Amino acid sequence: MKECVLCSWNADGLVYASENWRVIMADEAGYPGFCRVIWNSHVAEMTDLDEKDRMELMCVVWLVEQCVRQVMRPDKINLASLGNMVPHLHWHVIPRYADDARFPDSVWSPTRRSVDERTIQERKNHLPELRRRLAEVLTAQYGPSRDL
Amino acid sequence: MKECVLCSWNADGLVYASENWRVIMADEAGYPGFCRVIWNSHVAEMTDLDEKDRMELMCVVWLVEQCVRQVMRPDKINLASLGNMVPHLHWHVIPRYADDARFPDSVWSPTRRSVDERTIQERKNHLPELRRRLAEVLTAQYGPSRDL
Repeated sequence: MKECVLCSWNADGLVYASENWRVIMADEAGYPGFCRVIWNSHVAEMTDLDEKDRMELMCVVWLVEQCVRQVMRPDKINLASLGNMVPHLHWHVIPRYADDARFPDSVWSPTRRSVDERTIQERKNHLPELRRRLAEVLTAQYGPSRDL
Repeated sequence: MKECVLCSWNADGLVYASENWRVIMADEAGYPGFCRVIWNSHVAEMTDLDEKDRMELMCVVWLVEQCVRQVMRPDKINLASLGNMVPHLHWHVIPRYADDARFPDSVWSPTRRSVDERTIQERKNHLPELRRRLAEVLTAQYGPSRDL
């Protein structure tokens, strides 16, 4: 059996971890503020979780969405749980801007335009604030993060 | 202001409608069983809804996911709320198969392969059952559908 990349933990971008899930700030080129919420155990689908766990995971997704909206001020939020490549439950929370490389297509669609590096950099400048805000909100809701 | 295509109701593929949301079976070429759950009022993001409405919408998404899994037997479910083209809250519930045209990429990614028409037809044969199952489960949970 091939090792699952989401079963093995990786400190890259990790912001907060609970017993059941963790939140990371992904380093996706051109999409600063792209976050992931990963369920810790190896489960493929939302409906493989019981209702309590499903709700818990989704509430985290919404907290992350809220923080991303407040800090990154995107034109749109994209939420997705695909897992075709890695069938281990994880949510993408993606801030989208009308001038990003693929808008209004999905971030998995072909590129429509190139984006000025200064525009990307201005958005990147908010990442420390996003990290602080996520840690603060998640800690307020769920207590201290597990040791990372 | 441009008219929103999801504010205007369309009977195409409509399976069930409540006061707050409706479920349709989308007619997406190559993806039989592709469903959408549409919030009726014009709201862009999940975090624009209050917690009760957000939970309600998500529970419907999970009921639809469950029905799609049971009837369509896909290799993976994809869930997504993007709304870049139409910023009116709606969820895509997409059954994916290892041999579909874009797997393991998203359905918004470039095509990887062509799919035998018989394979598509075999999946289409389950659509009447999917419609029945969705109507049954949604009615059991939420009462009779609004007049369509």
